[in-house]
Amino acid sequence: MIILGIDPGYAIVGVGVVAYAGNKFKTLEYGAITTPAQMPTTERLKKIYAQITMYVDKYKPDAAAIEELFFNSNQKTAINVAQARGVILTAIANKDVPIFEYTPLQVKQSVTGYGRADKKQIQTMVKMLLGLNAIPKPDDAADALAIAICHAHSSKMNNMFGINTVR
Amino acid sequence: MIILGIDPGYAIVGVGVVAYAGNKFKTLEYGAITTPAQMPTTERLKKIYAQITMYVDKYKPDAAAIEELFFNSNQKTAINVAQARGVILTAIANKDVPIFEYTPLQVKQSVTGYGRADKKQIQTMVKMLLGLNAIPKPDDAADALAIAICHAHSSKMNNMFGINTVR
Repeated sequence: MIILGIDPGYAIVGVGVVAYAGNKFKTLEYGAITTPAQMPTTERLKKIYAQITMYVDKYKPDAAAIEELFFNSNQKTAINVAQARGVILTAIANKDVPIFEYTPLQVKQSVTGYGRADKKQIQTMVKMLLGLNAIPKPDDAADALAIAICHAHSSKMNNMFGINTVR
Repeated sequence: MIILGIDPGYAIVGVGVVAYAGNKFKTLEYGAITTPAQMPTTERLKKIYAQITMYVDKYKPDAAAIEELFFNSNQKTAINVAQARGVILTAIANKDVPIFEYTPLQVKQSVTGYGRADKKQIQTMVKMLLGLNAIPKPDDAADALAIAICHAHSSKMNNMFGINTVR
């Protein structure tokens, strides 16, 4: 199963692609889509749409996993990130790839087994689970890989127990 | 000049298409894109993307005008509307149609000449300016037409004075 993990954002979108089979992970690619602040909003969104489409076309994932959005205190940032997240969802949906959403807590628990794990602990577990030589950079890419791992674990549990709690 | 006016939303997106030439308006179409609450998020966004693309393909507008987003008190609603707005912007930008953003205040002042005009006053002016027999329904479509009118007026002023304050 190929999973496209996404850490949604506006200036930077984390992307991680993993293959998961027989309890083992293989990292296919990770990185970040960045859009410069001086670029007009519509061009930034258009770039995000095009790059996500490119990842989907390249890896033909069986599923995409994306983090749920929660408000931060900055309204302008929240609007921009939500707009970008809508674009990401649509780029994936337009390719008919099923999308699964996870909360940050679900991701933490799935990757580290511990809901209060800090960023460093999550990143270290991502490195170990994927057998990487170093913690993936930037942080957004590591987060995206963590979300992909979360979906892999979640799918496995759902298959084992014959349930599917994610839509 | 053909203008596509958009009142952004998630459950309902207002759309109005007008032609503007020699100080006169012609209404080409207005209506609303609706997405039912029971439809999954990704399907709702996908429908909005497809319908906006359809309008752009059908009318090949010279410009699109959309209202700026401000937060309301409901965070979930705000995220959903912002996600949908990002999808609308991208659907239009993917067709290389320039997009102009206006605040609700700019729309009010442009349509009625009065920044404190209420909804009913704006709708009445939309009906008069477009020479319609009745106030357009639903409200979202009337709002979308108001935004298109705002852009027509704004473009005219910009042409007269050789300035362009909108990006």
